[in-house]
Amino acid sequence: MMKKLAMGIDIGGTNTAFGLVDEDGNVVAESKISTDQFKFFDDYKPYIETLAAALKDLIASQPDCELIGVGVGAPNANIHSGRIETPANLWRFEDPADPRPEGIRVFNFVDDLSKLLGGAKVMITNDANAAAIGEMVFGNARGMKDFAMVTLGTGLGSGIVCNGEMVYGHDGFAGEFGHIAVESRATGRQCGCGRRGCLETHVSATGIKRTAFELMATMTCESELRSIPFDKFEAKMLSDAAAKNDPIALEAFERTGKVLGLALADLMAITSPEAIILFGGLANAGDYILRPTYRYMEENQMTVFKGKVKLLMSGIQDKNVAILGGAALIWKQHLEAVIENY
Amino acid sequence: MMKKLAMGIDIGGTNTAFGLVDEDGNVVAESKISTDQFKFFDDYKPYIETLAAALKDLIASQPDCELIGVGVGAPNANIHSGRIETPANLWRFEDPADPRPEGIRVFNFVDDLSKLLGGAKVMITNDANAAAIGEMVFGNARGMKDFAMVTLGTGLGSGIVCNGEMVYGHDGFAGEFGHIAVESRATGRQCGCGRRGCLETHVSATGIKRTAFELMATMTCESELRSIPFDKFEAKMLSDAAAKNDPIALEAFERTGKVLGLALADLMAITSPEAIILFGGLANAGDYILRPTYRYMEENQMTVFKGKVKLLMSGIQDKNVAILGGAALIWKQHLEAVIENY
Repeated sequence: MMKKLAMGIDIGGTNTAFGLVDEDGNVVAESKISTDQFKFFDDYKPYIETLAAALKDLIASQPDCELIGVGVGAPNANIHSGRIETPANLWRFEDPADPRPEGIRVFNFVDDLSKLLGGAKVMITNDANAAAIGEMVFGNARGMKDFAMVTLGTGLGSGIVCNGEMVYGHDGFAGEFGHIAVESRATGRQCGCGRRGCLETHVSATGIKRTAFELMATMTCESELRSIPFDKFEAKMLSDAAAKNDPIALEAFERTGKVLGLALADLMAITSPEAIILFGGLANAGDYILRPTYRYMEENQMTVFKGKVKLLMSGIQDKNVAILGGAALIWKQHLEAVIENY
Repeated sequence: MMKKLAMGIDIGGTNTAFGLVDEDGNVVAESKISTDQFKFFDDYKPYIETLAAALKDLIASQPDCELIGVGVGAPNANIHSGRIETPANLWRFEDPADPRPEGIRVFNFVDDLSKLLGGAKVMITNDANAAAIGEMVFGNARGMKDFAMVTLGTGLGSGIVCNGEMVYGHDGFAGEFGHIAVESRATGRQCGCGRRGCLETHVSATGIKRTAFELMATMTCESELRSIPFDKFEAKMLSDAAAKNDPIALEAFERTGKVLGLALADLMAITSPEAIILFGGLANAGDYILRPTYRYMEENQMTVFKGKVKLLMSGIQDKNVAILGGAALIWKQHLEAVIENY
């Protein structure tokens, strides 16, 4: 019998990574192409043709496999429509003054890729939802019916699962937990979404960096962080500094954990998950971020929820979660169909 | 063929109302007993026996009916366990200094009532979830897979439906939207839940009354509301005053709508519902509360959600929504079982 494999694709701003994943979550072959070579609106067509060719090469490298489908995680992707809609960092108009409204940047990704792959089954969802499905099929959320995945990268993404199903909402765009308000919409930090005060302006690799710079302004203590300019600063430097008890780094984690913990207490009040699973660059800071987050979450939630929720690190953090997430989209549906037809 | 009827029960702090409901949502017979005659912990047993006897009387009054089940909406009720756990206003310890911890006030409502009714099928959920199911089976959410019900009574309750299923969370206590933070947990308004800053301290019949009194302190304008003492003040008086252009009443609705609109924008970011359905005393203020709520919700949400969500009044507002909600719990399951066995 031929081995069944699902293709998982992760479309990032820099690279598009993809791999063939078996039922147990092993990536049996992987590769990537550049995304940022195809920056602009008119580059979308050559991009997807280049991608399709590379996918075919990878599939051809595994002669004894049956491809059960292609699952994609991408920013602003919609599972209902199969489209990527107005992604902030992909295929923008070359001229910033282009008069076409942003709203028309709609890419029929599923249809286009399926056509180039001879009618293969293709599914797409946003990257955080894909990560949550990866966690549900291959990671720490196996067997859970209600959990939330929070990805802490450049921004804050989320995938929320209730009653064993991903919450996509009526339009496919649910799960924008990074864009709830944590301070005034009038005076809070500016967000990439065009508004102010969003959670991700505080809780993300970028958010904690902003907090560190605010603290350099308000605190007078010495800190090795003061020698690093804003545009060279990476969130990773905060973990390194915290390990040496740098007061600004420690306070930045404390404040970031407070904002996240309070927001998670609200999320629990709404959906009451069994676990909250953290993933991504900032989550790599481990206890520096987990401890204050958990403490503030517990202190600030309703009595009925206290001590009930698990705050976990991703179970697929070390692996290519985005590839696994895309592949898990396909595997989840495939395995459910097998059970139904049994 | 005997007519199938479901019993719906609404346990309120003052009365327990109940009625027999047919498949189309008609209440064919109804009655009630006092709840507040049975205030204290040791009154629970006589209460449920009195209730069971009254239910039997009502059932006996409908000789040609088949009872398909009994559905109950009650504060702090848990659909998974069938229990009512530590309800704020029901069956409290008589002596406020009773040393038993609050946590032990657990009432096995489903088991107890089923036993008294000769093994009848009994289901229970919290009152706001029951209202949401009522709306889904009999009201304005018929055919919707994703919506949120917000009940504006003494407090703020919510029932959230995603993918066609009520979101109960892993422990059955999800849907506490009234207890997300809308201001500082340290300095915000005191809430009945023991914390500060919860949404319902601003958005509820009690919340808008508190806002009106704050405005009487901060504004100097004349207002007929200034003659009413706090403990005689009812939210309904604000609609009457607003109809006469009372500046404090109008500003109270504006501020309440702002807090609710901003909170709904966050709820949309998380669950992206097709509609938000308002119900309850404060919702009766109609446009006074709907207009500012909708305006602030639209102004403050992500571009991708703008103009998409419907803000509706309950479709069963005029009827006994709580009785219908309880009965809908039973009808929903009954009809799904019929479809599955077809």
